[in-house]
Amino acid sequence: MALLTLTSDIGEQDFLAGAIKGQLLQSAKDFTIIDITHSLSPFNYPQAAYVCRNAIKNFAPGTFHLVLVNLFDEKREHLLLAEHNGHYIGCADNGLLTMILEEPPQRVVSLNLGKTNQKNTLFCVTVFAKAFNELLAGKKLEEIGDPSIDIQVKNHLRPLLGNDWIEGQIIFIDNFENVIVNINKEEFEEQRKGRSFTIVFKRDEVIDKISETYADVSEGEKLALFNSAGYLEIAINKGNAAGLFGLQGFSEKQQQYASQQYVNHRLFYQTVKVYFQ
Amino acid sequence: MALLTLTSDIGEQDFLAGAIKGQLLQSAKDFTIIDITHSLSPFNYPQAAYVCRNAIKNFAPGTFHLVLVNLFDEKREHLLLAEHNGHYIGCADNGLLTMILEEPPQRVVSLNLGKTNQKNTLFCVTVFAKAFNELLAGKKLEEIGDPSIDIQVKNHLRPLLGNDWIEGQIIFIDNFENVIVNINKEEFEEQRKGRSFTIVFKRDEVIDKISETYADVSEGEKLALFNSAGYLEIAINKGNAAGLFGLQGFSEKQQQYASQQYVNHRLFYQTVKVYFQ
Amino acid sequence: MALLTLTSDIGEQDFLAGAIKGQLLQSAKDFTIIDITHSLSPFNYPQAAYVCRNAIKNFAPGTFHLVLVNLFDEKREHLLLAEHNGHYIGCADNGLLTMILEEPPQRVVSLNLGKTNQKNTLFCVTVFAKAFNELLAGKKLEEIGDPSIDIQVKNHLRPLLGNDWIEGQIIFIDNFENVIVNINKEEFEEQRKGRSFTIVFKRDEVIDKISETYADVSEGEKLALFNSAGYLEIAINKGNAAGLFGLQGFSEKQQQYASQQYVNHRLFYQTVKVYFQ
Repeated sequence: MALLTLTSDIGEQDFLAGAIKGQLLQSAKDFTIIDITHSLSPFNYPQAAYVCRNAIKNFAPGTFHLVLVNLFDEKREHLLLAEHNGHYIGCADNGLLTMILEEPPQRVVSLNLGKTNQKNTLFCVTVFAKAFNELLAGKKLEEIGDPSIDIQVKNHLRPLLGNDWIEGQIIFIDNFENVIVNINKEEFEEQRKGRSFTIVFKRDEVIDKISETYADVSEGEKLALFNSAGYLEIAINKGNAAGLFGLQGFSEKQQQYASQQYVNHRLFYQTVKVYFQ
Repeated sequence: MALLTLTSDIGEQDFLAGAIKGQLLQSAKDFTIIDITHSLSPFNYPQAAYVCRNAIKNFAPGTFHLVLVNLFDEKREHLLLAEHNGHYIGCADNGLLTMILEEPPQRVVSLNLGKTNQKNTLFCVTVFAKAFNELLAGKKLEEIGDPSIDIQVKNHLRPLLGNDWIEGQIIFIDNFENVIVNINKEEFEEQRKGRSFTIVFKRDEVIDKISETYADVSEGEKLALFNSAGYLEIAINKGNAAGLFGLQGFSEKQQQYASQQYVNHRLFYQTVKVYFQ
Repeated sequence: MALLTLTSDIGEQDFLAGAIKGQLLQSAKDFTIIDITHSLSPFNYPQAAYVCRNAIKNFAPGTFHLVLVNLFDEKREHLLLAEHNGHYIGCADNGLLTMILEEPPQRVVSLNLGKTNQKNTLFCVTVFAKAFNELLAGKKLEEIGDPSIDIQVKNHLRPLLGNDWIEGQIIFIDNFENVIVNINKEEFEEQRKGRSFTIVFKRDEVIDKISETYADVSEGEKLALFNSAGYLEIAINKGNAAGLFGLQGFSEKQQQYASQQYVNHRLFYQTVKVYFQ
């Protein structure tokens, strides 16, 4: 049995996640389906890239990944099938792939949707299922789709770099309201060059050390650490950093969400800056 | 391994979905369990029927479906086990079955709960698990339960039809706040008879064409299309139609939900009308 | 294939639940993973214990259970691996284990995390996966970890007992806003000694009988019953008891949650008292 992970922004309440599994298990019987999440925020590419990237890299090479996010972002007549470090990824040609991988895919082909077919999610799933089956049966990527495709590229959200500082964006707020910033440990150390530092957010909140674990500080105290994904995380031991500090995720689309705005009745901060001295 | 789908209104936080899987895997070892959703809205039959119907029909015949919704709607001493188009469905005798199938089940028997047993969810699950096992072992429906049952019938929520119009009810609002109306493509075309049309909602919002995909209109523009389930959907390209237009799902019970009312502080519309000319 | 259940407070949106499954399936290939829930409320031990206890006991002996709750509650250099009534449980040494079991584990060993390793969730998962694999390969608990451990003990939240009364705490509010109280049927009957009783909550709401099922009372009427887990439940037939009566779960940490406080704009009650006469 090959593993097939499923990631989407469909939500938990819809028939669609179930219907997708039904279609996959009809046409791709030799796969075991593993849900990553169906609760990605709609239209939030940096969040989707963060979640997909860090889920995918904890699976063994040879795993298949179906990423059903913003399939209909633009009017297109193809999907993408990529191979990268031994992982197979099916997704839309909307730029998310390069944000997930943080580099161009090692190999990628387009899967034609056809002009006459109805371009809905379930139809796309049947196209992916057929391609995954062919890969599992030993076909090469180039035999399944068209390698001449010039894919859409979106750069992942990078921190801004100065000589003596990094400015990161908040890419995720977790279930504990810990705040994840797009600065990973390698970038931090490379920029730091052994210097001391201050992490500054919300204008005047300052942290000047990296903790190993939440319990390194007293209950209710703020701290910074590198999380399971290797990213900088601002937290409060047994508290809710995002809520208390008024921090929120960076999103291109947030101004459109009335329901989010409903709770966003005060000023929110979306960046965290590190100064080295 | 046979497939067994699981749909309920238990929610994501309870021990019960896990306990149900434990009981099923104890007594029905040869099943692979696939979660459809556990987040159905309590007491919302039209929504439950929409989700179950469209999930079920994407699985292969021979699949078993356990639908744990409103098990204790009325005081009853039996459950239902049905066979329809090769699918096996276990559910309560509360009318939901005919709403899911949109017709009477081809074959149905009652499973006796007994007078003395405690009638809770987990006990019902053990009764279903035993029956599913017997089906898998080759027993006939009539050997497992009582075919003389006269099941409760609830009609699915049908759109109202006039000569020159259809009025549909909103049966689901998805994760993107797209609005799903209980008018499917066949009904629409049959009623339309090739005429031009206007889709009217919220008194004065008008759409006069069916799009193929969201990107057929500019960002922020409204559109109508038929979704993966074949139902009419009102959407805004990269926006939230339900919130912006004040549309909400049709539900018999909504007036009881204080927590819903909490956000429902303004007038909501629950129907969409199509005029043909 | 052995069964491995997964329970956490990670939430539905994070990459981490997916990454954990990826790590487990890399190093513990012979396990089938069953999600219990990833939506436990952060830092709510009574709720976590209620959910884990009642999920676990519905699985067959020989099942493995990974409970990833408050892993970093305190700064520790080991995890726990326990065997109890044939179940294998991996969790942090934070007192939750004795709250789940309601007694000391029959056998327990510590798994050393090492001083130099990064103590994040994914690293802990690899330590558990290795230990589970060794158990499955036939190793004894004592060969895998250190049995000399003196584990942290937290007592489960017990009801207060008087001669003529029991006072229970609300440990869970389910998806229907039914209210679960930490008084189980055995304790209730033992204390009751055949006497009549009144269940009193919110100062002046009174119930004087135990129903078998919700439909024993009219729609909108309050009732009490023992739920699938055997615990006292206060409900309204087709209504939302918690919301209407202003009842909420008992939690040590609630005062810290600004987002909860946001909806808690009125007085809430957290206990239910039963008087016998």
